[in-house]
Amino acid sequence: MTIKDIARLAGVSVSTVSRVLNDHPDVSETAKEKVMQVVAEYNYIPNTNARELGKTSTDNIGVVVRGMSNPFYTDIITAIGRCIEDAGYTMVLQQIGAGDDEIMTAARMERDKRLLGLVFLGGKLDYTKEQMKNINVPYVCCTFSNEYGNLDDKDYSSVCIDDKQTAYEAVEKLFKLGHRKIAVLLSTIDDGSISQLRFSGYERALKDFGLEVDEDLIIEVNSYNIANAYQEMKKWLKKEHECTALFAISDNMAMGAMKALKEANKKVPDDMAVIAIDGIEASEYMNPELSTLCQPMEKIGKEAGKLLIDIIQENKTNKHIILKTSLRKGETLK
Amino acid sequence: MTIKDIARLAGVSVSTVSRVLNDHPDVSETAKEKVMQVVAEYNYIPNTNARELGKTSTDNIGVVVRGMSNPFYTDIITAIGRCIEDAGYTMVLQQIGAGDDEIMTAARMERDKRLLGLVFLGGKLDYTKEQMKNINVPYVCCTFSNEYGNLDDKDYSSVCIDDKQTAYEAVEKLFKLGHRKIAVLLSTIDDGSISQLRFSGYERALKDFGLEVDEDLIIEVNSYNIANAYQEMKKWLKKEHECTALFAISDNMAMGAMKALKEANKKVPDDMAVIAIDGIEASEYMNPELSTLCQPMEKIGKEAGKLLIDIIQENKTNKHIILKTSLRKGETLK
Repeated sequence: MTIKDIARLAGVSVSTVSRVLNDHPDVSETAKEKVMQVVAEYNYIPNTNARELGKTSTDNIGVVVRGMSNPFYTDIITAIGRCIEDAGYTMVLQQIGAGDDEIMTAARMERDKRLLGLVFLGGKLDYTKEQMKNINVPYVCCTFSNEYGNLDDKDYSSVCIDDKQTAYEAVEKLFKLGHRKIAVLLSTIDDGSISQLRFSGYERALKDFGLEVDEDLIIEVNSYNIANAYQEMKKWLKKEHECTALFAISDNMAMGAMKALKEANKKVPDDMAVIAIDGIEASEYMNPELSTLCQPMEKIGKEAGKLLIDIIQENKTNKHIILKTSLRKGETLK
Repeated sequence: MTIKDIARLAGVSVSTVSRVLNDHPDVSETAKEKVMQVVAEYNYIPNTNARELGKTSTDNIGVVVRGMSNPFYTDIITAIGRCIEDAGYTMVLQQIGAGDDEIMTAARMERDKRLLGLVFLGGKLDYTKEQMKNINVPYVCCTFSNEYGNLDDKDYSSVCIDDKQTAYEAVEKLFKLGHRKIAVLLSTIDDGSISQLRFSGYERALKDFGLEVDEDLIIEVNSYNIANAYQEMKKWLKKEHECTALFAISDNMAMGAMKALKEANKKVPDDMAVIAIDGIEASEYMNPELSTLCQPMEKIGKEAGKLLIDIIQENKTNKHIILKTSLRKGETLK
């Protein structure tokens, strides 16, 4: 008997059963009664106890996150965490630095913490079969896929947006508003990460609209850091390139850029329109409010957690989920 | 000998015996004593211990955080995590909602994840001895202390700033700039949390400077949420109270307030000066840049982790650390 069976018999959701069994405060008395009746009737031993009995294995699920200070990840981690906890597992969160190797970190974690599965958050897009031999548990690439690697789809799961297409849409938006000199603010153009993917969307859009890719309008930050984006934008603005619009590949970078624009007395959007991708809460409170293509953070985290738990609990096959973004109009376009 | 025998000999119910042997938090001290006496007398090996024998103990340290989506906590969690990982332990992060009881959550975690210690992040300031009987491992209150509770200093550790004094300084800053009508934006004035403490600093400052506490200038949000702060500020602005300065008890709230001010065509700082406490990165990129008393986030996390690990590893005594804030000048004062 699994908690799914209990949920079915009690006529409540699986997460409600999990909450009751874990003595979670947010459960109605009615739901609690229903669940406990089924538990009593079928003499069910809750997961935690059942697991404790054998205890060669753990209930640990690892989450490796690069750049946790990026607010974009916070809501995703929250959603992954909820999902893991509700299913009765333990989330073991490991943060890594910009230069760290997430696969070796994960491999060590898998061994040391005896993980049942892994979520990579903000990893690279070029994992190879060779590298992934180090990982012996199911894993989900969260916010990215294997665009530049050679993994077989059946060997891993992923949840992300269509980054290339979203970048394309951002540039298209600017083009339709009349902009022809469109700068791009990114990490680097060929780092095997989201930055490369979003750059390729920018590039394709320019080509489709009959515009040249102008090297002078590519602003590389070499990181996703807000302070670095501010610095690089500041330097770039000194060169006074002809340009009326900026596509920043992340909200964070746009926030850094807007401070630099303000200091250079460039009005947004009159002197420079700005569009980004992500949709973090803080950028909604910028002045002017950032126009950005919002990722469904909570949904991304939820789907990633669900995929992994389905694989761990029910041996389901790997899946690849692509989620849609939505434009937050904001005030940085006109 | 079975637990039925123990129950009979101890004069308690079977379920009480089970609770005691499973280290469940909801047991009276008296019942526990009775049971353990019988256990000792008959040299009974409890089930749990029998189970424990087979497995190695955990290296889990729990971190219970209320409101993880608050960016203020992100850097602190990062620092705590580093500290825990560097010392070879595993951080088990548990997020709770605004209304959840962090102590019962922690007690369950302590049992289910067999924790070695606990960090409470963003908890309440009124824990009582009675409540804390549910926690049987060392713990650190991080970003708060026991101002409104009755704990003995020797029984817990804490790392925080002097919230009352910091709020006092924020108001003093505004007073020195000539402001006499100073509003305060907070969660509530008596929630037993940081909000109450910072309000009391605001109150004391006004009194010291010969100003009245004006109920019309107290804006209660009932949460620490940025969107709610924006809404409450919006409502408050419609009433057009005479006021030239705002003390927001957190950067997040100030960000919400500044959007409302902008929409009401109130210029910051000309029509309304703003000062806050926290110093999150995003508020540095606001326009205008938020003037705020910065907490040393990384240091807070590091010290909290270090305190706990010293206690776990070296049996050191509990400590209470108060860290200094520093003013980020910003552009919302004049």
